[in-house]
Amino acid sequence: MNATHPTEAPLSVYEMVFPDKTNHYSTLFGGQVMQLMDKAAFIVATRRARRHVVTVASDNVSFKAPVKVGHLVEVRATLTKVGRTSMQVFTELFSEDTLSEDRTLCASGSFTLVALNHGGKPVAVSPATTAVGGQA
Amino acid sequence: MNATHPTEAPLSVYEMVFPDKTNHYSTLFGGQVMQLMDKAAFIVATRRARRHVVTVASDNVSFKAPVKVGHLVEVRATLTKVGRTSMQVFTELFSEDTLSEDRTLCASGSFTLVALNHGGKPVAVSPATTAVGGQA
Amino acid sequence: MNATHPTEAPLSVYEMVFPDKTNHYSTLFGGQVMQLMDKAAFIVATRRARRHVVTVASDNVSFKAPVKVGHLVEVRATLTKVGRTSMQVFTELFSEDTLSEDRTLCASGSFTLVALNHGGKPVAVSPATTAVGGQA
Amino acid sequence: MNATHPTEAPLSVYEMVFPDKTNHYSTLFGGQVMQLMDKAAFIVATRRARRHVVTVASDNVSFKAPVKVGHLVEVRATLTKVGRTSMQVFTELFSEDTLSEDRTLCASGSFTLVALNHGGKPVAVSPATTAVGGQA
Amino acid sequence: MNATHPTEAPLSVYEMVFPDKTNHYSTLFGGQVMQLMDKAAFIVATRRARRHVVTVASDNVSFKAPVKVGHLVEVRATLTKVGRTSMQVFTELFSEDTLSEDRTLCASGSFTLVALNHGGKPVAVSPATTAVGGQA
Amino acid sequence: MNATHPTEAPLSVYEMVFPDKTNHYSTLFGGQVMQLMDKAAFIVATRRARRHVVTVASDNVSFKAPVKVGHLVEVRATLTKVGRTSMQVFTELFSEDTLSEDRTLCASGSFTLVALNHGGKPVAVSPATTAVGGQA
Repeated sequence: MNATHPTEAPLSVYEMVFPDKTNHYSTLFGGQVMQLMDKAAFIVATRRARRHVVTVASDNVSFKAPVKVGHLVEVRATLTKVGRTSMQVFTELFSEDTLSEDRTLCASGSFTLVALNHGGKPVAVSPATTAVGGQA
Repeated sequence: MNATHPTEAPLSVYEMVFPDKTNHYSTLFGGQVMQLMDKAAFIVATRRARRHVVTVASDNVSFKAPVKVGHLVEVRATLTKVGRTSMQVFTELFSEDTLSEDRTLCASGSFTLVALNHGGKPVAVSPATTAVGGQA
Repeated sequence: MNATHPTEAPLSVYEMVFPDKTNHYSTLFGGQVMQLMDKAAFIVATRRARRHVVTVASDNVSFKAPVKVGHLVEVRATLTKVGRTSMQVFTELFSEDTLSEDRTLCASGSFTLVALNHGGKPVAVSPATTAVGGQA
Repeated sequence: MNATHPTEAPLSVYEMVFPDKTNHYSTLFGGQVMQLMDKAAFIVATRRARRHVVTVASDNVSFKAPVKVGHLVEVRATLTKVGRTSMQVFTELFSEDTLSEDRTLCASGSFTLVALNHGGKPVAVSPATTAVGGQA
Repeated sequence: MNATHPTEAPLSVYEMVFPDKTNHYSTLFGGQVMQLMDKAAFIVATRRARRHVVTVASDNVSFKAPVKVGHLVEVRATLTKVGRTSMQVFTELFSEDTLSEDRTLCASGSFTLVALNHGGKPVAVSPATTAVGGQA
Repeated sequence: MNATHPTEAPLSVYEMVFPDKTNHYSTLFGGQVMQLMDKAAFIVATRRARRHVVTVASDNVSFKAPVKVGHLVEVRATLTKVGRTSMQVFTELFSEDTLSEDRTLCASGSFTLVALNHGGKPVAVSPATTAVGGQA
C-alpha cells in the first residue's frame, strides 16, 4: 500500500490488556483507561491541527464496565468540535473478548485540546473541513 | 516509629518526573497526570471504605500548566463526600522545582469511586466519621 | 456509535513515540519496532481465528528509516494468508511528523501465527471468508 | 488549599502494588522495594538541599516480610543527619491490606545522598533547621 | 576483579520473566522475545564496531516453545559474520526453570546491524579478529 | 550450541541505558542501579539453590560514578558465601562507553538471599561445590 494521508475520520487506538496494565483485580486500572483515551484524543487533535497540542480539560469520563485481562481494547476517538484554538474529542473504549465476538462499551469521555505555537501560546486551528466526521 | 494507622485526612502521592513519563515536549504526558490523580483518589477511597473500590467517573479535570521533567509532583487527594456506596475525591497536582521552592498548581480534577462486595456489586460504605477533612 | 464488529480488513495500531520507547539516539529502539509489529499481527490473527493464537515465526523484518521521538507511528497489519491452523500477517510501520503531513515507511515484516486449543495444540482456523483483504 | 511549602518533616511515598511491579511469587520484587526507598530518600534530600542530589550509598537494607500484590505501600523517609555536603535518610516500607487496617513493617534501609553544584562537585548544604525531625 | 575488556565471544543477556513482560497466558509475549534478542544483538555488534549501530534486518525468527512466568531467560548472541559495514548476529533464547536445571531452547533468530558515522551514513567496521567465535 | 547447564561462576547481567531508566540528569537513576544489582544477585542465588529465593538484606551499596544514557551496563554478580539457608552475592556495576572501550566501575554492593520451601520457610541449601568462585 502507499503512504497515503489519513482523513479526519474517527480513529481507533488498539491495545491488548496484559498484566503490566492491570490492577490486582486483573482488570485494566482506571488510570490506564484515561491514559489510553487521552492518547487517542491527542492523536486525533494533532492530525487535525498539525501543531503542538496539549490536553487542557477532560470531562464526563464514565466507567461503565471493567476491562478484563486478555481482552482487546479499542479506543475510538471522534473530533466533535473545532473552535478557534481548541478541539473537542469524544472517546469510547470498547473491550473485546478474543475468543468470541463479544464486545462491550466499557468507558467514554470528552477531551479538550489546544493548539500551541512554538512559544507555547494558543494558536488558531484552520477551519474545519468537510472531512470532519467522515467515514473511517 | 510505630505502624500507626492513617486518618482520613488529605493524602499526598509524590512522583519524580523522569523521562519515562514525559512526552516529546519534555513535560508530563496528560494521560500520566490523570493516572497519578486516579491512583491518589483510589488510595484515599480504599482507606475510607476498606472495600474493593473502582473508579466510576472523573469530571472537571483541568490542566492549568505543564509539568516539567525533573520536577517533583505532589498529588493531594481530599475525600469531599461519602454517599451510601460512593465516595468523591478532589485531587490537585502541584509541580515543584527541585532547585528552588517554586510550586505551581498544574492540574485538578474530581473522581467518583464506588465500593464493591466480592460479587462486584455496590456495597454500603460506613457513615463518614469526624476524621474526614481532619488534619494530616 | 454502536458496538459493531470489525471486519477482517487491514488494522492499524497507533503509538506516540515518547522517550520511554527510544534509544539514546532519540529514535524508536529496534526491539520496540518489532514489538509493535507483533502486537498488530497478534490482534489481526486473534480477530480472524477467535482462538488463542501465538506467534511462531517472523521473517523479512526490514528497517528502512529511523522513527524519531515525537512522531506518530502507525503499524498497518494485513492478513495475507490463512492456512489450516496458521495465519500470515504482513506489517508496515509508518512514521508521521505531527507538525506536517510527512509520512515515511520505516519498517516492514511478516509474521506467522498459529491458533491453539485449550491444551495448547494447533487447531483448525475456519476457512477464509470474502471479507479477508476487504476495505477498512 | 494553598500551594504552601512543605517542611522537612518525614515524607511518605505511596504506591499500589499492581502486577507490573511483582515477581512470579506475586510479591513486590526486592529491586522494586529498593527503588521505592531510593525515590523517597531522593525527594526528602532534594527538598532539604534545593540542589541537584545523588545517592552515594545505601546501607542496612533489610527485608522483613513480603509485600503482597494488591496491597498499598507507604515508604516513610526521615532525614536523620545533615553533614556539610551529605544527608542521611532513613526509610521504612509499610504494607497495608486494602480490606482491613492491617499494616506491616516490611523493609527498612538507610541512604546517603550528596548535594552537587552544576559542575557535578559536592557543594555545602545549609545547616539543619529546627524543622528537621519535626512532625508530619 | 578488574575492569577488563570483553572479547568478541558469545554474550548472554539474562532476564527474569516477571508479570510485567507476559501476556494473558502467563508466558513471555512474542514482542518481548524479539526485543530481548534485538538488545543482545545490539550489544554484541556495538562492542565489535565501537560505532553507533542500528538494526537493519531480522530474519528467521522462530518461536519453538513458550517461556513461562517465573523462568529465567538467557539470550545467547553470537557474531556470525562481519562485512564491510554490516554485522550478522545469531541469537538463541533459552528458558530455565528456577527450581530445577531444566533448560529449553525456546526461540532463535538472526539480526543484521550496520555501523554508522556521526552523519548517520554506513561506515566501515574494522576486519574481524581471531577472537570472533572464541570461547565465552 | 547445546543447552548446557551453567556453572556457579560469576554471572553478568547486561542492560542498555535508554531514557526509560534515567533521571532528569540523563544518568541511570539510583533506584535502577539497585534494581539491576538485585536482579543479578537473584539469578546467581537461584541457580545455586534451585529453590525459591528472596533477598533479605543489602549492604554497603556504594555509588562511585554516574552511569550515562547510551552506555552499556554490565552487572557482575559473584557468589561469595553459602551458609545453611542463606547465600551472599557481591555485585559490581560497570559502565561501558559504546564508542570506545572505556569502562568504569560505577557501583558495588552486597546482597544476602535466603532459600525458601513451598511454605515460605527457610530451607537448607546444599553445601558449596568446588565450582563456586570458578571461572566463567
